[in-house]
Formats: sequence, C-alpha cells, structure tokens
Amino acid sequence: MEDNSSAATGLHSIRCRAAVCRKPGEPLVIEEIIVAPPMAHEVRIRIICTSLCHSDLTFWKMKDFPGIVPRILGHEAIGVVESVGKDVNEVKKGDTVIPTFMADCGDCKDCLSNKSNLCSKLPFSVSPGMPRCGTSRFTDLNGEVIHHFLFVSSFTEYTVVDVANVTKVDPAIPPNRACLLSCGVTTGVGAAWRTANVEKGSTVAIFGLGSIGLAVAEGARICGASRIIGIDVNPDKFETAKKFGVTEFVNTRSLGDKCVSQVIIEMTGGGADYCFECVGMASLVQEAFTCCRQGWGKTIVVGVDKPGSLLNLSSYEVLHRGKTIMGSLFGGTKPKSDILTLLNWYTDKKLELDKFVTHEVGFEDINEAFNLLIEGKSLKSVIWMNN
Amino acid sequence: MEDNSSAATGLHSIRCRAAVCRKPGEPLVIEEIIVAPPMAHEVRIRIICTSLCHSDLTFWKMKDFPGIVPRILGHEAIGVVESVGKDVNEVKKGDTVIPTFMADCGDCKDCLSNKSNLCSKLPFSVSPGMPRCGTSRFTDLNGEVIHHFLFVSSFTEYTVVDVANVTKVDPAIPPNRACLLSCGVTTGVGAAWRTANVEKGSTVAIFGLGSIGLAVAEGARICGASRIIGIDVNPDKFETAKKFGVTEFVNTRSLGDKCVSQVIIEMTGGGADYCFECVGMASLVQEAFTCCRQGWGKTIVVGVDKPGSLLNLSSYEVLHRGKTIMGSLFGGTKPKSDILTLLNWYTDKKLELDKFVTHEVGFEDINEAFNLLIEGKSLKSVIWMNN
Repeated sequence: MEDNSSAATGLHSIRCRAAVCRKPGEPLVIEEIIVAPPMAHEVRIRIICTSLCHSDLTFWKMKDFPGIVPRILGHEAIGVVESVGKDVNEVKKGDTVIPTFMADCGDCKDCLSNKSNLCSKLPFSVSPGMPRCGTSRFTDLNGEVIHHFLFVSSFTEYTVVDVANVTKVDPAIPPNRACLLSCGVTTGVGAAWRTANVEKGSTVAIFGLGSIGLAVAEGARICGASRIIGIDVNPDKFETAKKFGVTEFVNTRSLGDKCVSQVIIEMTGGGADYCFECVGMASLVQEAFTCCRQGWGKTIVVGVDKPGSLLNLSSYEVLHRGKTIMGSLFGGTKPKSDILTLLNWYTDKKLELDKFVTHEVGFEDINEAFNLLIEGKSLKSVIWMNN
Repeated sequence: MEDNSSAATGLHSIRCRAAVCRKPGEPLVIEEIIVAPPMAHEVRIRIICTSLCHSDLTFWKMKDFPGIVPRILGHEAIGVVESVGKDVNEVKKGDTVIPTFMADCGDCKDCLSNKSNLCSKLPFSVSPGMPRCGTSRFTDLNGEVIHHFLFVSSFTEYTVVDVANVTKVDPAIPPNRACLLSCGVTTGVGAAWRTANVEKGSTVAIFGLGSIGLAVAEGARICGASRIIGIDVNPDKFETAKKFGVTEFVNTRSLGDKCVSQVIIEMTGGGADYCFECVGMASLVQEAFTCCRQGWGKTIVVGVDKPGSLLNLSSYEVLHRGKTIMGSLFGGTKPKSDILTLLNWYTDKKLELDKFVTHEVGFEDINEAFNLLIEGKSLKSVIWMNN
C-alpha cells in the first residue's frame, strides 16, 4: 500500500455541498458530494467565497472534451486550509490561501527564473484531475467520479488543491476582494505590469472591455499609462471603463469604411505603444499587431481563441517594423510572489478591487451569477459559500 | 529657383567609374558615369572599398520592381567625404564615413528613443532614389538616369548619400574591415546583442549559416552564450562556423523522421533560449518559434522572405508558451552610435572582423566577387576601388 494514501495521513473524507455541472449549459446542481482527503503535496480547503470568471462559462457550455461532466467548475476563490496531505510544509490547517490554476512549485528552472511564470514541473493544462496524478478527489453520493476544473474547482464548500497551486495570504484581507486575484484581475493587471511592462506616459489600446480588458486597463493605469484606448462593440461599456482608467473609446461598429487599426493609428499618431487582445480572436490579434507602434510596439495576446486558430502575420511586417508579439498566461505573474504584491497594492489603495465587484450572491444562487454574466449585467459576481 | 540646388553650393558634377547593373542577372558593366553634387542634407563620398552582401545579389537578379535597371548596387562600404551640400554640419570634406541603408536623423521620436532604431523621419525603403526627394544623383554619359540602391549605391568611385545615413568613423580603422559594419556584420551581431539581448550562459539556435547567421553567432559569442547551435542544409559550413563560436551543428538534410524543432528541443532539454531565422523562409520562422524555449524563448526574424509571405503561428502556442517573436532590421542597432561601439569592439579584439573576409578583389573584378558568392566559395569579398 502506498504510504501517501489517506490512510497514512489519518484523514477522512468530507461530505459537503457542491454546485455540480451535470449537463453542459444547464443550471448547476447543488448536491452533496464526497471530498477525499488530500494526498501527498495536496491541501484540502474550505472555500470562503468564489467569483465567477468567463472561463467558467466557456467550459460550462462546452459539449466536447476538454468539456467533461460531471464536473465542479470555479477557479477564482479564497479559502482556509482544512487539512494537509503528506509532505506539505508550506501551509498548515487554518491558513488562508488563494488557489490558482497556475502552479508555482518554487524549484523548477522556470519557477527559479525571473523570466518565466510557467512552472515546468506542474505545467498548466485543462486536465479533469489533479496535477500530479490526474485522478479526482470528488465523488457523488452514488460513488461516481466528479471531475476537477483547472486544478481548483471552487464551486464547492471543500476542494482539494495541490500545494504548488496555493498562495498563503493574510487572513485579514477581505475575501470578496482577494478572490479576484485568483485568476481574472491578476491576469489582466499582470498582462500590463509583468508581460508588457507598460511604461509611464505610454499609450495603450485594449481590445475587449470585459473584466479581463478592464483589469488590463487597471494595470495600465497603475503603471502610469497616459492614454488608455478601449475598443469594444458595445458603446455602453465606456462609462464603466472610465472608472478603470480608460480615457478614450472606439466603437468597432461605427467606424464607417475604416478598420480599427487605421483609427487607432490616426488617434495616436502612429500606433499604440502596447496593444492587448482580450477577446480571443486571432483576426483581432492581427489587427492589434497592425495598430501597435512601429519601432517598439508590443502586442500582447491575453484572449483565448479556439484550439487550432492561427495568427497570420506578414513576415515583412514582423521583420521591418520593430514590433513584438507575445502571449500572457496568468498575466505573466508568479502566483506565490505576485499575488502578495497585488494584495499590498490593494491595501495601499493603488489597486482598486472594489469596483470590479458588481454583485454578491449566496451559494444557492450560483446559477443567478451565471445568468448575470451571460446577460452582460455583471462584471464580477462574488459567490459566498455561507459555511 | 530653390536655394539648395547645386548651383547654390558652388559644387560641380564628378565623372567617375561605376559598376552599373544594366540587365538583371547579367555581369555589372564598369563604365563612366556622372555623379551630381550633393543637395541639401547630402554628402558626396569617395568610396574606398565596398563589400558584397547577399542583398546585392538578390536585387541584381530581380526582374520586377523593386528590381530596376540601370542601377548602381552595393550598400556595404566605407569612404571619404568629398563634398557636402547645404545644411550639412555633422561631417565635412575629408571625414571618413560609413554609409548605411538605415538612417539615424537624430531628432525624430524614434531616433531619440532607446527602444527603436527605425528612423521615422527618413524611414527605410527600397526606393530607387534619394531618401528625401526620390530623385537620382547618377546619370550615364548619354544622360540617362541611373537608379540608387538602398540609399547607398557603393559600387561606384563616388556616390551621394544623405547625411542621416552616414556615420563618421576614425580614419585609422582598416577600411576593408570597417566596411563590413555598413550592413551584414552589424545586422547579425546586432540581432544577438541589441534585438535579442542574448544573456551569458544562454543557448542560441541559428537557422542558416551564411554571413548573417555567422555574424549572429559572433554576436552571441560576444554576449556570452554557452551553446550556439548552427542549423544548415550544408554540413561543410560547420567547420567555418566553429570559428564564429558555433558549438554544435544540425544538418537539416539528415534528421530522418524528425523535424528540426524536435531535434533542437531534445538537444537543449526544452528548447533554445534564442532562435534566429537568417534564411528568410516563413516556414522556418515557425519552426524556430516551435523550438524556442517555453517560458521565455525569443524568436528573432532576421531573414528577408518574399513580400506577401505569412507567418502562421498557433494562437494557443503564442498565448500559452510565454514565447516572444520579433523582427530585427539592421540588428536593432542605431547606426551613428552602435557602429562606433562595434568598431571599438574590433579594436579591442572582442569582435573578430578579420575572419569574415575571405576574398579581396580590385574594382575591375567585381563580377568575380559575385561569382564567388553565388558559388558559395566566399563569405565576404571586399572590393577595393583602387582610386
């Protein structure tokens, strides 16, 4: 018998409530489930609250693999460690932690480098199981396996997460703000701060003013950008966007004969210093690349397009224009160090998390949070576990 | 009458010998031509020597625009200022100068920024005329206009170049070494040094071991790269490449079932830190992108593909792999400052220019220099003007 089993740790399974995605696109079902004890390098967490990210919606609707049911979605959360598996020294029972879909093992070549945030020991994937073994810690009351999501699965009162995927934080921080750093806000702010390294006085163009795009704006504002141009199909978004530092707005549906890049190049006298694609459309990445400034413009891909999508860039443009294109996963941030920096920025009132939260609901109303996001009525909804 | 005409300067036309490209792909014709006086912001230069670059060959063979005849090719050279036009204060008669196809006006937003080397006042193009007005300073003895090439046209005893396109250098420097910095060596060394910023101990992969690829190797060696992998279809190139710091060789014609990226990823345990495409094939850029290391790998496009060529990159790869792609024109260097640094490196024996020069010929043997390059027998041929 392997010595890192639950028997070896003396821990027991927990019975708790979870919102299970049983059929793609249908309301989540709140039901009792069994959460196995953490195995080696794992921690079991009592979720305090969780916020809803657009990727939850994407995978909720997805009919084919990597969409898979039954599954516990959710990956933006904060919680308290309930128990730890073998070989976990970094956190202990009672610690407040933020789980993240990105690991930070702390000792692979990538985690040790200041140039990478892509842990090579426990790489990001959309596996339906735990990162080290691929198996699940969730079963329903009939004994059927329930799958994980993005190594977090926070739509449950208790979840199990690898210790490489948790960051210990100050318990005094308001949980309904801190949970935003678990994915979306860190991704957007990080894309401007860590990936692009936006400089004071620079001009930024943001394609797509959803919560990620607005978090990019927040990051660009913090970095001192002097012009932040928001681009979206919905002009109503500009009023909200202003609160996040967006200074100008381009409605892509009222440009007449012009394409977006022409408009941005004219507005900026040559192109934006930094362009962020937050929609997830390869064609829009090409447009962003066109409208970033010759000489030094950077295009940062933040949006997730369909698998297989291709970016078609003119070889001549790449060679002759001095522009750079790069991706940004989790905003280029390292979870265990950068989330603490962002929390300090929040405490110092530099990073304004409050304005992201438009709705707060109880766990039993989780489907209402989905509806609000689908209808474009919410920016970020926080779901309290009420436990 | 405009006051920046030759009449206003009191200068006269010069009659001298030039090697004129009269028909694409046919031997250059050495003939007498007329070189008009420099207009405002221009200098007339007596060429001391010129070296042959692969782009000279490309445009020599080109039948359609921007290939154009009659034309004076050549763009890697060193010379002495013979006369200056109005408003030229930076250099005077007798100064030794290196002309470059890239301008460095010194006062546009790009020239003033340390992030760009793409002068926006006098942008690079393949115009057949002078940069400010598009007209020619060359005529043949029948009065027919002869076109310029890359704002330099050095296959002539005298040429006219914009003052933004010349760098004043120490006359003591050996001209048959200094001329290499006029294009090729600066482009390659700069791509490693300025564009990629190759770090000590890093792993570099270079696709194509022509003179540009070898100059990249030289740059990477100077920057302290610990492994420099050369990739070429011709295994004979490895012996020469070793002299430039290339430590390992991959022959793309003997990989069996594997593609280059698989081989490089295996050799390096995950990919090279920096990949340079020096051939000018979009598909090879994609291969280079694949084999640069996840987390921080940079792919630098140095080779010139056909106009209209597209780079197809997987959107998923760009987003999820933390890799960057960027172009490098003139190695990302600013002519007027960086050429002087490179000359200092040469004097300090850090940059070994001597090994690039495999042949030296007199002006009357210029077609022989073309043949040597076509047959792959030369690396760099220096052509002395014997004047």
